[in-house]
Amino acid sequence: MAAFTLDPHFQSPIRKQQMSSSFPNDSVGLVEPQSLKFDKALALVCGKVLEKYELVYETYGDLNATQSNAVLICHALSGDHHAAGFHQPDDKKPGWWDSCIGPGKPIDTNRFFVVSLNNLGGCNGSTGPNHLNPDTGELYGPDFPIVTVQDWVESQSRLADALNIKKWAAVVGGSLGGMQALRWSLDYPDRVGHAVMIASTPKLTAQNIAFNEIARKAITSDPEFYEGHYYRHQTVPTKGLMLARMIGHITYLSDESMGEKFGRDTKSQAFNFGYGVEFEVESYLNYQGKRFSQTFDANTYLLMTRALDYFDPAADFGGSLEDALAHAKCSFLVVSFSTDWRFSPERSELLVEAMVKAKKNVAYAEIDAPHGHDAFLIPTPRYMAIFSSYMDRIANEVEKSES
Amino acid sequence: MAAFTLDPHFQSPIRKQQMSSSFPNDSVGLVEPQSLKFDKALALVCGKVLEKYELVYETYGDLNATQSNAVLICHALSGDHHAAGFHQPDDKKPGWWDSCIGPGKPIDTNRFFVVSLNNLGGCNGSTGPNHLNPDTGELYGPDFPIVTVQDWVESQSRLADALNIKKWAAVVGGSLGGMQALRWSLDYPDRVGHAVMIASTPKLTAQNIAFNEIARKAITSDPEFYEGHYYRHQTVPTKGLMLARMIGHITYLSDESMGEKFGRDTKSQAFNFGYGVEFEVESYLNYQGKRFSQTFDANTYLLMTRALDYFDPAADFGGSLEDALAHAKCSFLVVSFSTDWRFSPERSELLVEAMVKAKKNVAYAEIDAPHGHDAFLIPTPRYMAIFSSYMDRIANEVEKSES
Repeated sequence: MAAFTLDPHFQSPIRKQQMSSSFPNDSVGLVEPQSLKFDKALALVCGKVLEKYELVYETYGDLNATQSNAVLICHALSGDHHAAGFHQPDDKKPGWWDSCIGPGKPIDTNRFFVVSLNNLGGCNGSTGPNHLNPDTGELYGPDFPIVTVQDWVESQSRLADALNIKKWAAVVGGSLGGMQALRWSLDYPDRVGHAVMIASTPKLTAQNIAFNEIARKAITSDPEFYEGHYYRHQTVPTKGLMLARMIGHITYLSDESMGEKFGRDTKSQAFNFGYGVEFEVESYLNYQGKRFSQTFDANTYLLMTRALDYFDPAADFGGSLEDALAHAKCSFLVVSFSTDWRFSPERSELLVEAMVKAKKNVAYAEIDAPHGHDAFLIPTPRYMAIFSSYMDRIANEVEKSES
Repeated sequence: MAAFTLDPHFQSPIRKQQMSSSFPNDSVGLVEPQSLKFDKALALVCGKVLEKYELVYETYGDLNATQSNAVLICHALSGDHHAAGFHQPDDKKPGWWDSCIGPGKPIDTNRFFVVSLNNLGGCNGSTGPNHLNPDTGELYGPDFPIVTVQDWVESQSRLADALNIKKWAAVVGGSLGGMQALRWSLDYPDRVGHAVMIASTPKLTAQNIAFNEIARKAITSDPEFYEGHYYRHQTVPTKGLMLARMIGHITYLSDESMGEKFGRDTKSQAFNFGYGVEFEVESYLNYQGKRFSQTFDANTYLLMTRALDYFDPAADFGGSLEDALAHAKCSFLVVSFSTDWRFSPERSELLVEAMVKAKKNVAYAEIDAPHGHDAFLIPTPRYMAIFSSYMDRIANEVEKSES
């Protein structure tokens, strides 16, 4: 019995890339998601077992002959497999990390074979709450088991097996994605050359958990939530999910960047003295919340925030991150941003300190940027310079060992 | 026609104070709210007019012969007139600012006559959304006009008239209360000796407004809100108000104080892998939110957050706080707290800078305290020392001019 099957409906992205020419030179161009079905049971940390599941992913660039130039991209709370390039010639926006992935970009697709997947429990193709539960014939909904960062790494390792990648040149992620990179270094020390953790943290603070709890409460309080069975009722908890996203959004931006973007600008010349939108920042948040609530699945949002809450690799080592890191064999790049108050530079420094104590190779940079947590998505010059130079070193290592 | 009438149902708090002896020596003891009815129409900034209204207040200490020792306490978002002492002999908790008001405390009731009111639009006795609208015979609900900080100052000036107080020795407030103190100094420069602004700001930032907007959205999205007419439906938007309070609560505490209080402590030994309460901080927030939602009025919450949003006394002076302050005649004490990220020390420094430029007397202290915005309620030693010493100077001035 095969542990995975290639879905015949999906095409290789390579062919399509060659067809396109209307994209910027530093874009991977047109890409198409691929899919793999796994029928080897996955025992989850929560105690439940997923008998079968599907992972949707994209790849950019070419895998070299020795399969040594592969880079895994791990996504954050609301991300997915579409990290770079375009799905349609007329797409207005490229993938979520297109600023960092492409020819000549920090994750240079002329040199690396990049794999980006939608995580298990996601809502954009990979098996998750909005998929059929084979046991019931209904959508999983709230019966989809809670998955943890550790489970994601396990499922990603099977994807690596399927793609014939024995060792990642690098596992790279921002925010929750950085947690996956860290977990890879601990769970599969021999399969990771470098772990890159950007705007991340070794565990959430009480304040981080508090924000997540309010977001969850907003969703579960929505009468359209039906304890997670909203699909059955042909509805979605739009208002709750909108609120959850608005709460999250505040924590992605800095006070400074919100101030620069909106200040106290008003929608109309004079105040209306009511509870409609008066300030531009209200309008922006409402728009962002509404848009998100129309495309993202509420059960997945709950699941992703819980994966964040639970993450604490030091917990199994009496709270010692240094002891946890003793197992890692890779080198690390840790990057933080000065105005990120969600996962502040102090959180990254905790990580770096433990890595140094555990005698690991680690490079650390705090980037002075005004954009808060979102800075990991924004190609500011010093960030790009440091990220590029680190990835360049990896590509050089890879190419040297190949020649 | 009298502009105000004393309510015969309310007693002077003085008598009761003398009856009690089971309270700490530095407590004002048993107090009883009083009430005044005003029938002189109040034209509000929003353009609407309140024909009649009632203000509920408490007083502590004795007014001196020349009425020169009166101090006005202005409350913050969820505060009320009950700032010090106890309503019942078996009350477990005293008024909200009992730490700072009482015999020998910074606002020393042996020397000052202290007045503390529930603001117009409040939900604890003064006329507000949960009062009868004389025009309709129904409760005001959402038809209660939006009141601004300026309107509060106007209504407070009428309370001062009624109490025969021509000039306050000091107007004192924390957070939104500090905004009222500032507005007093601008609107009634001859009626304020000193303005004390603690953990306050000259205007909200975009981030502050964003938090308020999400809180409002949580309330107005609750199906039990009925566009503010929930009283008619014999219900209250408990879940929305609970969420609003939880969101607010995060901004009152610092990341540091939440970490110290809860860290990542869990409710049970092992994780349950579900969306029930797993962490202590979730339990705390849920409890705080629930308790608040059972006692506070949702329409008042909306109104108070809007008063915060709109406050910007510099706006009438082309954005120049310095020009706005040119009208002030009082001296100022400004206090901020190092870990307050709701109204950070930088916000207070903006105020102080403008005061200095406008050549006003101003004393400023940033207190090193871990409690975030809530620090203004917590009697830490350096805070108490500075606050006491400033108020002591005022009392000395008052007593010197009397003798």
